[in-house]
Amino acid sequence: MAPLPPRPAPPPTLEPHRLKEAVERTLTTFLATKAESTTAGGRLPNLASPLQEFLAAGGKRVRPVFAMIGWHAAGGVGSVDTAHHLAASLELFHAFALIHDDLMDRSDTRRGRPTVHRALARTYGRRPPASPAEDPGAAADRFGEAAAILIGDLAFVWSDELLHAGRPTPGQLARVLPLLDEMRTEVTLGQYLDLAHTGCAGPDVETAFTVLRYKTAKYTVERPLHLGAALAGAEPALLDALSAYAIPLGEAFQLRDDLLGVFGDPDLTGKPTLDDLREGKATVLIALALQRATDAQADRLRSFLGCRTLTEDQADASRRIIESTGAHRAVDGMITQRYKEALAALESPLIDPVVTDTLRLLADQSARRHT
Amino acid sequence: MAPLPPRPAPPPTLEPHRLKEAVERTLTTFLATKAESTTAGGRLPNLASPLQEFLAAGGKRVRPVFAMIGWHAAGGVGSVDTAHHLAASLELFHAFALIHDDLMDRSDTRRGRPTVHRALARTYGRRPPASPAEDPGAAADRFGEAAAILIGDLAFVWSDELLHAGRPTPGQLARVLPLLDEMRTEVTLGQYLDLAHTGCAGPDVETAFTVLRYKTAKYTVERPLHLGAALAGAEPALLDALSAYAIPLGEAFQLRDDLLGVFGDPDLTGKPTLDDLREGKATVLIALALQRATDAQADRLRSFLGCRTLTEDQADASRRIIESTGAHRAVDGMITQRYKEALAALESPLIDPVVTDTLRLLADQSARRHT
Repeated sequence: MAPLPPRPAPPPTLEPHRLKEAVERTLTTFLATKAESTTAGGRLPNLASPLQEFLAAGGKRVRPVFAMIGWHAAGGVGSVDTAHHLAASLELFHAFALIHDDLMDRSDTRRGRPTVHRALARTYGRRPPASPAEDPGAAADRFGEAAAILIGDLAFVWSDELLHAGRPTPGQLARVLPLLDEMRTEVTLGQYLDLAHTGCAGPDVETAFTVLRYKTAKYTVERPLHLGAALAGAEPALLDALSAYAIPLGEAFQLRDDLLGVFGDPDLTGKPTLDDLREGKATVLIALALQRATDAQADRLRSFLGCRTLTEDQADASRRIIESTGAHRAVDGMITQRYKEALAALESPLIDPVVTDTLRLLADQSARRHT
Repeated sequence: MAPLPPRPAPPPTLEPHRLKEAVERTLTTFLATKAESTTAGGRLPNLASPLQEFLAAGGKRVRPVFAMIGWHAAGGVGSVDTAHHLAASLELFHAFALIHDDLMDRSDTRRGRPTVHRALARTYGRRPPASPAEDPGAAADRFGEAAAILIGDLAFVWSDELLHAGRPTPGQLARVLPLLDEMRTEVTLGQYLDLAHTGCAGPDVETAFTVLRYKTAKYTVERPLHLGAALAGAEPALLDALSAYAIPLGEAFQLRDDLLGVFGDPDLTGKPTLDDLREGKATVLIALALQRATDAQADRLRSFLGCRTLTEDQADASRRIIESTGAHRAVDGMITQRYKEALAALESPLIDPVVTDTLRLLADQSARRHT
């Protein structure tokens, strides 16, 4: 991508890191309260703790930041504390999605640390095996998986509670809940479609784009913007104007993610670059590579995809095939095109100019990021 | 338990099967709409279908019936359609809990049919393996497990949407949502505690009772009654009066379930009586048996509990130990005592007499059931 032109800075209150900090405080306070209330009886384990650790390990808080921008885009009407609660609840819902996702993918690490099911399996290791016949390692894995399902479920339950704790008005709830229902159905459908095409002989390009739209573009950018804007009382026309920015940007975000998943620096991303190939993820990058490959290349690439024992050498061979088909370059081109579309959409007179500098900055970061 | 005295029949509109039928129609209509809307784009799989099959396989709809009774107990104020939607949403939430529970327990059957993760694993079987290195059976199991996590998640997402589809008023939502948040946290904590003590060397009686209260008594009886009553605008005093009936009855319900899980007739319950022993479930029955057993009996019983390869002969030996400690009889006594407490609580002047005949009938069914 070409170097960036000089950009005007967003107003201080709309700087992404400032928005992130405010949401972070809401999230931290809520989980501290839950840690106290759930263990108050003395007989219950502290189930807030795995979630606190998970969130402390990092994360860009992309969805909360977009939600806050959506709220400001619609004039920032109502209590800012309610907006912070809505934004924070999206992050807790996302924690639920990631914890279940890591379990489904059997990923060992996330953000450079053990995934929740792996970390919980270790806590089991300190207990004696249930019976002499039992393999302690298998029992610990099984406990970790079951516990991670429940910790994920709890993050979902608490994301609702966190939203309610922000005391939205009845009018705000009536506007927000249908969008939240939509978002949650969309991301679950996207995940299912992803799963159904993962490890297969490679998706077609159209299917890969459907997965990407449901799983990321809508979920990561469009719906958070909509939810924040709806909280402030946005008209449908503003939601549409925000979609014109959000969908291409969300696609660019995921296409970049797919590139980083295969060609990224694990030290920066915190995720091994073998994972996407080992899982045979249904990405546009892979679909394009298979579409453009010679028969021999496609056969070779398919023999690597979804292979749980893929070696570094085989991963390198896969990368060389993807490069040589031009798929890497093509995806780079798609990102640039969508990035430009997103920026062009910011010219809409419906979007409050106070947020456009921040949205431009977020577009730069999403499309150009290395992590 | 002593034979039942003659009971006055509930008014026709409050007969449990009539309440169940009305809720069933709401549930069926909602899922049919979802089946249509999610596949409308043409590229998305019909994810309503596994949920439709799961619900069609049976279930007593205990929670929806209690929710409807709670609504009537508080005077049945507001739209009955809204009440049906709330009641139906509890069943969809329960489907979520059961689907994840079966996966965590690795149960093969539920209601006499394959569990959701097993059924979904079979749909995978029709596809070619992802790579020659992959064991097709293991890949199918892995797909079934991941898909069941998502189908469970979707049931949760849709349970919220189903509640909202009943168009509760802002006042109704404000009363219902905090109780719903409580209920969901309670059941998840109960499940976690259950998991943490499952397969262990057997729980103590107090822990087993804590699991039972969170996982069943509150979740199955108290909260559904509260939710229905709150929808109709109940005062806190009525909620307390309902709790005085609900908690002992809910405990009796689960204690009966624990007995059926070890001594029941699999042809009637649809669940093998080996499962609870194989899993080493943290039940009051087992805790009592271990507490009352001789050292030799306790050692022998512990060697069977949580053993995945438990044979029918070993299960019989376990049953004989449990019988000989008197734990079976003691649990029967606990059920009778709680059943009487629940009936006595119905004398409260706060509970509308229109519902007491139905609540008495439900107490009879819950404490005396064989399935």
